Amino acid sequence: MPARAGTRSTTLRSPSQIPPRAADDADTPGPLRTTRIPLLQPSPAVPGGFTPKAFVGEVVPFSVTSFREGHDIIGVHVRLTSPSGEETLHRLSPRDDGTDTWSTNIALDEQGAWSFRFEAFSDDFATWAHAAELKVGAAVDVPVMAALGADLLARAAAERDRPAAQRKHLGDVALALRSGDADTTLAVSTDARLVQIFRERPVTSLRSASPDQTVNVDRLAAGTGAWYEFFPRSEGARRLKDGTVKSGTFRTAMKRLPEVAAMGFDVVYLVPVHPIGTTHRKGRNNTLVAEPGDPGSPYAIGSAAGGHDAIHPDLGTPADFRAFVRAARKEGLEVALDLALQASPDHPWVSAHPEWFTTLPDGTIAFAENPPKKYQDIYPLNFDNDPEGIAAEMLRIVQHWVGQGVKIFRVDNPHTKPLQFWEWLIAEVNAADPDVIFLAEAFTRPAVMRALAAVGFQQSYSYFTWRNTKAELEEFLTSVSHETADYMRPNLFVNTHDILTEYLQFGGRAAYRIRACIAATAGPVYGVYAGYELFENVARPGSEENIDNEKYEYKFRDWNGAEARGESLAPLLRRLNEIRRDHPALRQLRTFSTHWSDDDAVLVYSKHLDAPFTGTGRADTIIVVANVDPHSVRETTVHLDTTRWGVPLGERFEVEDLLTGAVWTWSDHNYVRLDAFAEPVHILKVRERS
Amino acid sequence: MPARAGTRSTTLRSPSQIPPRAADDADTPGPLRTTRIPLLQPSPAVPGGFTPKAFVGEVVPFSVTSFREGHDIIGVHVRLTSPSGEETLHRLSPRDDGTDTWSTNIALDEQGAWSFRFEAFSDDFATWAHAAELKVGAAVDVPVMAALGADLLARAAAERDRPAAQRKHLGDVALALRSGDADTTLAVSTDARLVQIFRERPVTSLRSASPDQTVNVDRLAAGTGAWYEFFPRSEGARRLKDGTVKSGTFRTAMKRLPEVAAMGFDVVYLVPVHPIGTTHRKGRNNTLVAEPGDPGSPYAIGSAAGGHDAIHPDLGTPADFRAFVRAARKEGLEVALDLALQASPDHPWVSAHPEWFTTLPDGTIAFAENPPKKYQDIYPLNFDNDPEGIAAEMLRIVQHWVGQGVKIFRVDNPHTKPLQFWEWLIAEVNAADPDVIFLAEAFTRPAVMRALAAVGFQQSYSYFTWRNTKAELEEFLTSVSHETADYMRPNLFVNTHDILTEYLQFGGRAAYRIRACIAATAGPVYGVYAGYELFENVARPGSEENIDNEKYEYKFRDWNGAEARGESLAPLLRRLNEIRRDHPALRQLRTFSTHWSDDDAVLVYSKHLDAPFTGTGRADTIIVVANVDPHSVRETTVHLDTTRWGVPLGERFEVEDLLTGAVWTWSDHNYVRLDAFAEPVHILKVRERS
Repeated sequence: MPARAGTRSTTLRSPSQIPPRAADDADTPGPLRTTRIPLLQPSPAVPGGFTPKAFVGEVVPFSVTSFREGHDIIGVHVRLTSPSGEETLHRLSPRDDGTDTWSTNIALDEQGAWSFRFEAFSDDFATWAHAAELKVGAAVDVPVMAALGADLLARAAAERDRPAAQRKHLGDVALALRSGDADTTLAVSTDARLVQIFRERPVTSLRSASPDQTVNVDRLAAGTGAWYEFFPRSEGARRLKDGTVKSGTFRTAMKRLPEVAAMGFDVVYLVPVHPIGTTHRKGRNNTLVAEPGDPGSPYAIGSAAGGHDAIHPDLGTPADFRAFVRAARKEGLEVALDLALQASPDHPWVSAHPEWFTTLPDGTIAFAENPPKKYQDIYPLNFDNDPEGIAAEMLRIVQHWVGQGVKIFRVDNPHTKPLQFWEWLIAEVNAADPDVIFLAEAFTRPAVMRALAAVGFQQSYSYFTWRNTKAELEEFLTSVSHETADYMRPNLFVNTHDILTEYLQFGGRAAYRIRACIAATAGPVYGVYAGYELFENVARPGSEENIDNEKYEYKFRDWNGAEARGESLAPLLRRLNEIRRDHPALRQLRTFSTHWSDDDAVLVYSKHLDAPFTGTGRADTIIVVANVDPHSVRETTVHLDTTRWGVPLGERFEVEDLLTGAVWTWSDHNYVRLDAFAEPVHILKVRERS
Repeated sequence: MPARAGTRSTTLRSPSQIPPRAADDADTPGPLRTTRIPLLQPSPAVPGGFTPKAFVGEVVPFSVTSFREGHDIIGVHVRLTSPSGEETLHRLSPRDDGTDTWSTNIALDEQGAWSFRFEAFSDDFATWAHAAELKVGAAVDVPVMAALGADLLARAAAERDRPAAQRKHLGDVALALRSGDADTTLAVSTDARLVQIFRERPVTSLRSASPDQTVNVDRLAAGTGAWYEFFPRSEGARRLKDGTVKSGTFRTAMKRLPEVAAMGFDVVYLVPVHPIGTTHRKGRNNTLVAEPGDPGSPYAIGSAAGGHDAIHPDLGTPADFRAFVRAARKEGLEVALDLALQASPDHPWVSAHPEWFTTLPDGTIAFAENPPKKYQDIYPLNFDNDPEGIAAEMLRIVQHWVGQGVKIFRVDNPHTKPLQFWEWLIAEVNAADPDVIFLAEAFTRPAVMRALAAVGFQQSYSYFTWRNTKAELEEFLTSVSHETADYMRPNLFVNTHDILTEYLQFGGRAAYRIRACIAATAGPVYGVYAGYELFENVARPGSEENIDNEKYEYKFRDWNGAEARGESLAPLLRRLNEIRRDHPALRQLRTFSTHWSDDDAVLVYSKHLDAPFTGTGRADTIIVVANVDPHSVRETTVHLDTTRWGVPLGERFEVEDLLTGAVWTWSDHNYVRLDAFAEPVHILKVRERS
């Protein structure tokens, strides 16, 4: 598939129309870093020289800083080569901000490595036309300008790769200019047909080119999707008469899949499904001693029943797992597995490969610890004793699950393993299967989070859960949507089995509504952990986790009863996912931009996609206005830069609230009233003007 | 000369003490971009991969982002190789801000190309000591920690490049730890001598290294100096009885040099000294027709008397010029020449090399123009018709003047010539003579100004003249002192023959005082154009230039009379340059940082240099408090972060006003009263505590 070009770019699809690669006549060889016309700060780019990424259909800004001395007009192209080898040329436009930045938006719609290079040239016709219009208009140098124009057009007419009819026309105009007539010269300098001809295929000199660069395009699911996390053992778990619990299985859990699919989710993410150790097993609420019947944390991986390539016997067999994956696929859902590279003391690795752990002078294996604290249900891997052996095993584990139909891995605590290991592992896996996606659960320092994304992780958990005020969200969402978008894709989980923020603990049901609306509209990838629908907001005292955390016990939830009682968020989630499917602007990251309100708690942002990129032929614009204070009613004025979707400031347009169906006439300044206890968020579709 | 290390770095001067280059045991070969311990975003660095620069004695921050998984402690070094081949190792400290940035300041005091690489390692003793202190303190794992410590110390004791006495001591401690005794283990984990031993020469594993990088150190004058611009033809010019003017000459102009030197300037910059064309010569106040006797603009270079390698006959002979250069040198002044690569229609190039210009279809040569306007006294060079020929001639011109003793060139309008040409020319000139310095007069768009600096210009004019409010100056000075300091050095000219800003036109004498104080203290390089001392503040109506601009006529100035009448700024300039000589913190760019005041017109900044870098053994700290509103008296409170010079918040210290001699006791909050009409600026020296 070729690239689709934006409104401001010219795509020449026919190879015969593509001028040859530049720099054949203007580049200086040797040690100089600059070209005749400089091409600096090319983008997409990643600090440190890592490969920038995009996803299939992502609209990517290509930009470069370019200028030349003096008043002559330059033009800038980006030359793209798709993974299948098709070459296209896209014209960049100068940003009107004095930065000498040229840019265009291009949708990259083929998976794989695209190469691109920027090319700049002196735009000889534009330079002449600009000077001729001014000078002939002022009756200065008329014969000279006519003669210069005639020479230029004759040169263009001689270019063999222009269509014959065009060459004839250019030759005729050149001849007419030979008269030296002022009116003819002025007319030629402003002729729309010539402007169009030379915009598509300029007459150039001083052609310069940047080095070839690469942007890697992942499949769609790397960049867009709604995730639903759950514990399969809870789905279908039953309390028996003797008080013990019979675990849910893949067979019982798969019965939940149609409901998840009906809510509009794309990915079901399962916490680890492997055998759980018994040595030092944790009890309910993270107590040090498990009671009989406590199922243990699925992160304490490995027992006599097997390790990371095995299925917990309580959940079923490998065949049951494959059936679960198939059932999900039938519902349009993809399964993501947890990849938690650590072992319980009972893991088969411990006896087979003690060198993969740290053995202490007393002969024991070191537990995970944060001195003086120890985590005695977990042995961390030591990646340095036998790096090759351990890397090969981890690759084998991933490839095993890829063989079982899993192409998405949510990686637990990647920041506790060497960065270099991840760079190697992801490259190895993707070399064999570029469809495999890794999500980094790295709730760690910014440099580490970003480095994990830069070395290969296709998605990243982020600080989203802890960004709750208007100012925090403006800064955070702007940063992830633009500053780091060439390499880091945030997955905006609203909660996880490990994270129940104070905002959710103390914000009531409004908090759940607000956060779901923002996550689902601000980012193209977001997620919820099962139970969010039920407003499960009681924390274990002093912690940021749910009380009776599902990590250590089975949960019994009455999904349908809650919905029937009107006490479920499922209808809102269903509607949000429907809105996401209807609106391509919401399935992009870089379309996000903030607007303004006079209230410190009323967040305003829009997501806008130009018509050429929507697939419908019409532009798509969503405005979100959210009262992020879950405890109050806010009335304020919202201020919009409507020019971002092509509406002049002050002009009226219709918006439709996609949650309530209300329709209003808005302009650049609008009154809003947002009641946290009723409808805290407007999700407004801008209606096309008729 | 070796590098001097800052308070926070360890320099191991003896080669025998320097551990071998890292990465011999931990780097992974192959296509991976990351090392075992990542070393990301190394600095100094320039966007686009250009070579960073410094000047002799400049204190340069070296920093890198480095971290490792888990809780183990890492260490980071930078390994420097001086131009003369001496290798030193400097320990970096982590910034305490959660960014995983490690840094240290190093004074680079040898001219030439330094190479540097960052090296990271697991700091095994620090990791053990931290864990041992916590665990043994909590009575956890005592025998294991003792045994681990014994193993570690025995390993260190076996390292052959440690001094024998140290190896013996380490072996003894290892033996003591074999007892497994808790008190011994705790004592060893906190032993100051061991901390010192291992800080200087750590026990390491997982050693990783960045690629080798380069920072180019220019001579001192590239980075620090006070410039004085003047027109030699005005100095000693005399009006004759017939009303005509007899031009000043190098012989008369050199009589002014002792006064310039006495004011404390380092560089005298002369506008072009070449023959001036007569065709279309400009008259007074930039009129199109010169009157007889009008000397013409020195920028209309070239006549029958010669071109860019010739001396204007009115000024004297080449021997006179050389005498001027010698006279300047005798006064401790260096001469900077203007390099204006353009020609009057009378330039010898025009007939000898018409191909270096643009010939129009009518056979004429194109004037400089901004269509439809033309500048008929100037032919611009066309760098593209004969790039090799023109480049060779420009190189010859520069080398000619280098041969005449000129090593500094102020380049006129470099942004109207190809960027690539400058990259080539400066590299060629500096390859033969690294002492040659080019100052870019590029009052143009930010990207172009920065690119010129990045490709090689050692200094740049900047937007300083148009940054006048407190907010503007805070932003501007912070940006040039830090953000771009690895490649762009601003020369803070307060005025030029082309620039008389509205601030100076309408700010009265206070404006002149304020701007001189800020330029001289905020930047290590600054300049004034002759006449600034005399408060010449009348502009040609509607322009930003002086009326009766010296570019088009002789100026007669009574320097001594003005000073005798108390109407000269010379005493202030003299004092400012004296203060600059006394205070090394002022001769550095990156020492600048802003503080706060409650008044929107009171700018506060400090410049601080740590004791190891001053050459005096004492730290140097200057606080500048400036009322930048030249029309009012301001009273306000100044708020200082005194910790930047090591004074705890709230503690008192003495400051001495270097302009008035007043002494005050200050703390972090201080009352000031700044009268624009009397003393608008405090330049305060922080006195060392006794």
